[in-house]
Amino acid sequence: MAVGSGVIPEIFPISGVRIGVAEAGIRKKNRKDLVIFELAERSSVAAVFTQNAFCAAPVHVAKKHLSTSACRYWLINTGCANAGTGEQGMRDALRSCDALAQQTGVTAEYVLPFSTGVIGELLPMDRLEAGFAPALDNLSADHWLRAAEGIMTTDTRPKIASKKIALDGKAVSITGISKGAGMIKPNMATMLGFVATDAEVAQKDLQDLLTQVANKSFNRITIDGDTSTNDACMLTATGCSGVSLSPSASEWETFANAIEEVFVALAQAIVRDGEGATKFVSVVINGGASSEECLRAAYAIAESPLVKTALFAADPNWGRILAAIGRSGIENLDTSRINIFLNEIQIVANGGRAASYTEEQGVQAMAPEDIVIRVELQRGTVSETVWTCDFSHEYVTINAEYRT
Amino acid sequence: MAVGSGVIPEIFPISGVRIGVAEAGIRKKNRKDLVIFELAERSSVAAVFTQNAFCAAPVHVAKKHLSTSACRYWLINTGCANAGTGEQGMRDALRSCDALAQQTGVTAEYVLPFSTGVIGELLPMDRLEAGFAPALDNLSADHWLRAAEGIMTTDTRPKIASKKIALDGKAVSITGISKGAGMIKPNMATMLGFVATDAEVAQKDLQDLLTQVANKSFNRITIDGDTSTNDACMLTATGCSGVSLSPSASEWETFANAIEEVFVALAQAIVRDGEGATKFVSVVINGGASSEECLRAAYAIAESPLVKTALFAADPNWGRILAAIGRSGIENLDTSRINIFLNEIQIVANGGRAASYTEEQGVQAMAPEDIVIRVELQRGTVSETVWTCDFSHEYVTINAEYRT
Repeated sequence: MAVGSGVIPEIFPISGVRIGVAEAGIRKKNRKDLVIFELAERSSVAAVFTQNAFCAAPVHVAKKHLSTSACRYWLINTGCANAGTGEQGMRDALRSCDALAQQTGVTAEYVLPFSTGVIGELLPMDRLEAGFAPALDNLSADHWLRAAEGIMTTDTRPKIASKKIALDGKAVSITGISKGAGMIKPNMATMLGFVATDAEVAQKDLQDLLTQVANKSFNRITIDGDTSTNDACMLTATGCSGVSLSPSASEWETFANAIEEVFVALAQAIVRDGEGATKFVSVVINGGASSEECLRAAYAIAESPLVKTALFAADPNWGRILAAIGRSGIENLDTSRINIFLNEIQIVANGGRAASYTEEQGVQAMAPEDIVIRVELQRGTVSETVWTCDFSHEYVTINAEYRT
Repeated sequence: MAVGSGVIPEIFPISGVRIGVAEAGIRKKNRKDLVIFELAERSSVAAVFTQNAFCAAPVHVAKKHLSTSACRYWLINTGCANAGTGEQGMRDALRSCDALAQQTGVTAEYVLPFSTGVIGELLPMDRLEAGFAPALDNLSADHWLRAAEGIMTTDTRPKIASKKIALDGKAVSITGISKGAGMIKPNMATMLGFVATDAEVAQKDLQDLLTQVANKSFNRITIDGDTSTNDACMLTATGCSGVSLSPSASEWETFANAIEEVFVALAQAIVRDGEGATKFVSVVINGGASSEECLRAAYAIAESPLVKTALFAADPNWGRILAAIGRSGIENLDTSRINIFLNEIQIVANGGRAASYTEEQGVQAMAPEDIVIRVELQRGTVSETVWTCDFSHEYVTINAEYRT
């Protein structure tokens, strides 16, 4: 299941980025499971990684390589997360970088590894490395969609966003892919996201921009509240368009907004394709005293199994929303000031059922695939939005049968 | 579904406590949904209530009455939680106390109201009050089981624990009932628990004892992480056995342990009958630096939808346990010191898969209905245990269809 049409948009290739995809048979045969990104020399590369203390071997290695060297290759496999694999996992991640480096004429530090899939199993190194040659053989600027397919695990459809804007009289393109589906509550990153632009941006500016837009996109989604061990989100700027940008430039805001648009589209695509999802839900908290308390309330609602099962049933059980806010730990919460709206229907006024509200209105508001739960705290002026999906039988089936 | 046999134990009536039960038709016909406890004069009464900021009207009223008066009656209804009902809800809760007081010759402050059921609907006052007379007509010391049945909502079986101990050459009895099923993560209380003893205990000592044992029982269970708006846990000491006890007495520890045993049994019974439960899971965290960090890790595991669906599938997917610990927010966690055991099978050693571990061992360890997940943090000497259940299709079905 997934929410919405999932139509593939027009994809603008990024000058300076070539992508190769192979079927390496990491876990299953006859599926794309190995993706190699080749970046132009002098590309800037920015990254955010999972905050999970148990971060996977490839995350350790990617951080290390990024801190010591420029970057030319992103090496991505699905089917095996190489997490919880101890010293052997570290050796395998390093060896895979080294093997790709030898075939491409760089040194290992120029390669960043990314893995996603089952935790606790070792990488099948022979099959992985045997996939490098076929992947390198089909390097092409036009393989974004194949790459989006190649990083899927329990995702039911590829996730891709692309945008072309005019800056300084020249065209700048931004294209990205993401994967998600389960164990999704990114904390400074998502499961996996890879975005590229052909603008030229200095590394530090690119990193600041990535941190900022990740906090408005991948760090605002939750499917099950479980932060993955392998989350990573990458942004590269190849500079091949000839358009150079910095935060002091007048075009920067247009550019940053376009980048944010692509990130939000990729993050929302993950939620729309959340495991078993039948609803796409925006939880909007207005009138908070701080961003932190808005997020507390938003996540309490977005992660409540009772709210999520009610959404699955299209049941306007607003008592569960109210109970989630009540337990979210906001200090000195005056519940009598709270108003709640479901797709513009007011269901709660001053902390109790709205006098105007009828069950029929609620049923109607819950009918669409896209639902907005809006809470007015009336404590301040801060707003936050978190995106989530519902909790269905299919979620249980997928996660009870994931390894079998 | 429910875990274990649920055999009803021998029930020891409590001298000084009589119970009446009626079918008032609050939400459905032909089911016990109204329970009245009558306590002997001069009974001590202690209470802990939900910490949810949106606490229900009866919780407000019970707190107020308890602070101003002795207590003679507990008035309990199911089918309607009288929560999120604003001013009208407060008036209804007060009026129900007043109506019962008039029929029993006391004043309203001597009555404490408790409601459980759907949030956001008004109490059907006529039907509720019409049930008082039949309930009072059958007041009896022998109606504990009927009371346990009378407070059930989505519970599939009554929850009752009873114990008789010899103190000071005389017998002291302790008997209690509880209800749970969903929206269960008590925070200073459970959904509903009512426990009585015929020992004589001063109110302050009884309150201290209740707070202490609630923290080792009802405050250590979670089914879905959702704290209810109506949680309340009551402990009364009627004094009718003629055995007077205080913390300085040599028999106090025996008594306190017996009380704790009854509370733990009632709390565990709630988990065993958790909505859709097929597994009873003890999450034991050893070697923590503080109780707080042990509980962080324990709840991260116990509330992870991914861990819970793996438990439902009897899948030893230890990577999910490891990922939950990793995101639980323990500061400076050295993951390389962590060991994890599943029913005495070591699955993780030093943060990675244990060398001795085989998938067959894991499958065997997951087969029983009762599972112990034991985590050794090796950071200190503190331990905590939290009890939970798995996450099944049945949970989704129950909560998607609760109101229909």
